[in-house]
Amino acid sequence: MTPQAIREKIRANEWVKPTSGLAPGYIQANLAVLPKDLAFEFLLFCQRNPKPCPIIDVTMPGSGVPALSAPDAELRTDIPKYRVYRNGVFTEEITDVSALWDDSMVGFLIGCSFTFEEALLKNGIQIRHMEEGRNVPMYKTNIPTVKAGRFEGPTVVSMRPMTEKEAIRAVQVTSRFPSVHGAPIHIGNPAAIGIEDIHSPDFGDSVTIKDGEIPVFWACGVTPQAVAMHMKPEIMITHAPGHMFVTDLKNEQFSIL
Amino acid sequence: MTPQAIREKIRANEWVKPTSGLAPGYIQANLAVLPKDLAFEFLLFCQRNPKPCPIIDVTMPGSGVPALSAPDAELRTDIPKYRVYRNGVFTEEITDVSALWDDSMVGFLIGCSFTFEEALLKNGIQIRHMEEGRNVPMYKTNIPTVKAGRFEGPTVVSMRPMTEKEAIRAVQVTSRFPSVHGAPIHIGNPAAIGIEDIHSPDFGDSVTIKDGEIPVFWACGVTPQAVAMHMKPEIMITHAPGHMFVTDLKNEQFSIL
Repeated sequence: MTPQAIREKIRANEWVKPTSGLAPGYIQANLAVLPKDLAFEFLLFCQRNPKPCPIIDVTMPGSGVPALSAPDAELRTDIPKYRVYRNGVFTEEITDVSALWDDSMVGFLIGCSFTFEEALLKNGIQIRHMEEGRNVPMYKTNIPTVKAGRFEGPTVVSMRPMTEKEAIRAVQVTSRFPSVHGAPIHIGNPAAIGIEDIHSPDFGDSVTIKDGEIPVFWACGVTPQAVAMHMKPEIMITHAPGHMFVTDLKNEQFSIL
Repeated sequence: MTPQAIREKIRANEWVKPTSGLAPGYIQANLAVLPKDLAFEFLLFCQRNPKPCPIIDVTMPGSGVPALSAPDAELRTDIPKYRVYRNGVFTEEITDVSALWDDSMVGFLIGCSFTFEEALLKNGIQIRHMEEGRNVPMYKTNIPTVKAGRFEGPTVVSMRPMTEKEAIRAVQVTSRFPSVHGAPIHIGNPAAIGIEDIHSPDFGDSVTIKDGEIPVFWACGVTPQAVAMHMKPEIMITHAPGHMFVTDLKNEQFSIL
């Protein structure tokens, strides 16, 4: 199925499931929707923190159309499931946010790890959480993001265990994709970045780390959502975990080498 | 001299000259200052057009401090010469813009070609306009930028002639610096990107193209200034050509590989 066909099914509520594995080769994105009086600061926050917050597209205030990444799409309806947060508190999970997306709302699409995971797989590096049928483990770290106005907080990372040899190749492969998280931000000792127990992730599931493997950490697209929620905006809309927006852009368009 | 020492001399009006060649190895940047009601759209324009508009730093509204790139600097005074444009018309050239930079102003520092020129030189690729003691030739093209709100217009490119063999190496070398213009956007035939006469640049000076050389074109940091001026903001401040802001950031920090 093409991204367009997938979005049509989603819009018609015929696909209300995670989007992992849909439209291989195409960029999928995280969503964060904020009122326009926060838009400059949030965009600046993302610009200052490109590894956790790689911007794929931004709508004009009041518009739900991601003009650069899927010009015939509508962000108000084309994501399988949304979450609504009011004053930083999760209040509801819905499949259409048209009623909430008024003239003041700006939608931010932020790159997700699906892109570089596909590149790792193509290079023969297995992804443990996929093998084990779990969500990727994610951790709050002691690595601060760069503050922008009211937006600040720690970097959230995702972790994939692999051999040291694979870790070197993983650095090379993911460096090619600076606009979808890029190279890892840490390799090895979890304590060095403030992770006390690698088997107790803050989000997602724990995965097996085999003998001879080291944990490899990438900046995670959950960071901007966590940071935005931390400052408790009156309203904020996000995708539900795993229920991403499928764009018309190909992963390879985002490789620089 | 360190970047800090250079900025002190500039602040004291002891250096009112172009900054080319100062503080080798450190990032120098173009300046664009706009009122805050245009800041979101302009930042979005830059985000949508990272090759011509690579953002190095953005001040918070009303502040002249580039907190990420030179936290002890002051953009109101630390550039040798500024230009002021009112309603899109150039009105004055001054050495201090403190009186104009009120609470509503936002300063944008945008990457400049000095960074990748240094990388080219280190790779044995001579820069013709340096050899000939001229300004780099720049051209308006028929390559549209991606519109963001009120900001739109053609991409401006800079041109450096070299052999075809050098052009291949230049693609590799400059691809390492995606956040300071990155790889060329065109190689060869000028007419293909709307340049009628390669010897009549729109900005800067004409340079010699020798037999066996081809023109290689990079997106140019003049683009965002040209685009901003085109929509005639009530006030806009820029650096004077060649009179750049010297940051504390090293060129190599901006290389991804």
